[in-house]
Amino acid sequence: MRIANLSGRLALIVDGKAVDVERASEGGFSAEPQAVYERWEAFRAWAADADLPAGAAFEPAELRSPAPAPRQTLAIGLNYRDHASESGFTAPEGLPPVFTKYVTSISGPVTEVKLPADGHTDWEVELVAVIGRRAEHVDEADAWSHVAGLAVGQDISERVVQLAGPAPQFSLGKSYPGFAPIGPWLVTPDEFADPDDLELRCALNGEEVQKGRTRDLIFSVPALIAGLSAVLPLLPGDVLFTGTPAGVGLGRAPQRFLAAGDELVSTVEGIGELRQTFVA
Amino acid sequence: MRIANLSGRLALIVDGKAVDVERASEGGFSAEPQAVYERWEAFRAWAADADLPAGAAFEPAELRSPAPAPRQTLAIGLNYRDHASESGFTAPEGLPPVFTKYVTSISGPVTEVKLPADGHTDWEVELVAVIGRRAEHVDEADAWSHVAGLAVGQDISERVVQLAGPAPQFSLGKSYPGFAPIGPWLVTPDEFADPDDLELRCALNGEEVQKGRTRDLIFSVPALIAGLSAVLPLLPGDVLFTGTPAGVGLGRAPQRFLAAGDELVSTVEGIGELRQTFVA
Repeated sequence: MRIANLSGRLALIVDGKAVDVERASEGGFSAEPQAVYERWEAFRAWAADADLPAGAAFEPAELRSPAPAPRQTLAIGLNYRDHASESGFTAPEGLPPVFTKYVTSISGPVTEVKLPADGHTDWEVELVAVIGRRAEHVDEADAWSHVAGLAVGQDISERVVQLAGPAPQFSLGKSYPGFAPIGPWLVTPDEFADPDDLELRCALNGEEVQKGRTRDLIFSVPALIAGLSAVLPLLPGDVLFTGTPAGVGLGRAPQRFLAAGDELVSTVEGIGELRQTFVA
Repeated sequence: MRIANLSGRLALIVDGKAVDVERASEGGFSAEPQAVYERWEAFRAWAADADLPAGAAFEPAELRSPAPAPRQTLAIGLNYRDHASESGFTAPEGLPPVFTKYVTSISGPVTEVKLPADGHTDWEVELVAVIGRRAEHVDEADAWSHVAGLAVGQDISERVVQLAGPAPQFSLGKSYPGFAPIGPWLVTPDEFADPDDLELRCALNGEEVQKGRTRDLIFSVPALIAGLSAVLPLLPGDVLFTGTPAGVGLGRAPQRFLAAGDELVSTVEGIGELRQTFVA
């Protein structure tokens, strides 16, 4: 099952067309995309059985984030060994670094992103998981049952602010407006042959800059949910950015950062793509 | 003006008694405490002119956080020189470290807090500001006009998780359930002779462990709002933890951490106090 946020309204994507959920359910489910996670099991059951009307065509630019207003966004740093290494850090043990991307940075899959002046803005393609069932002290073996679905995310990062100062600054430099595109829709875990092994790719102006597989995550999606939910409850609709593989601009020689006019395409196997263009 | 969250309902505190806002406004304002920040100017105008009924007595244990569900919580690290020094960091320049305290950690002013097993849990009394008007690229001189009011906050911190790993971990170790008490109510800036110079104190089992003044903040409340709002919009109801002065357990010789049975009282001049007891 694929669910999308089409201009602010919850939709099911069926054969590439969109079915408006509020209308198809005759008001049984709200049009508000973030609200669906509060009633995720009921929604899944309804969507599986419903006699849906024909869908309507739509433009990618109409898509917004399938989780536009999470109460909590937990973003994971240094979760692939090759990226930890290129960033000059050792790989984490026990717990990975956790920061947030503030909710005002969340955007849809097809956007124009304003580059901060004097910044060094970088790309990080990531697998994003959205929580569908409250998770508190969850066993790793049971963790996937708490996931509503997966999406592509870009953890866009302004490195000057991120790495400034005497101590951690990750959250701020990664939270400029539009720095957290999520989409193009949410795909439920049952749609994947193996949701723990998906290819991620990122291309800058058509040139592939990142390529990895989620089987190389140091902390897998279930391990993250188990570890994080031992500290704090994960709520329905919460967003998890899982970390990026090697190939970011910071780790290149010479370093390379985003410039006005650049186009970034971020892809996760079996989900789809994000497309960001950057402006000064 | 003082506003409080009494068992989940918005109240005005007048002469130490509570006036229920929804009832006094005949439904003009919602009982939901977090909703008031969306209509802050209208609420202030109403509260200033309203012919309020007599208030009712209440118990401190009925108080909850005056901002129980902010969309964004921005917490500032190392914002007093003496605390940066005792923590082994240099004082920040340009921008202070920013992390979050996840919304599931927010609690009321009088609570029992469960200590994480095997943790080193520490105290940090802080001044908390709540945003009353969206702030985006705000000038420092205009910043106070974006503040709804001030409260006492405790940035309770589990140091093992906070400082673990190859890179910043502040957000997670500071987000166990109940690790962000806020209260006892919100006091509007006009109630203070000088809202930029307030005494903070923290006492552990009756012994004073922290004492400072907000005039010693490296980044004052207006400077923080100016600096942060240059990166991301601050939304009505967002919470700002402004940092702690010296005297935390981590910085002592020998170090000292919270144990079951300990009682922590955190005070800010002109606002009131928080009272936390700790259990295993």
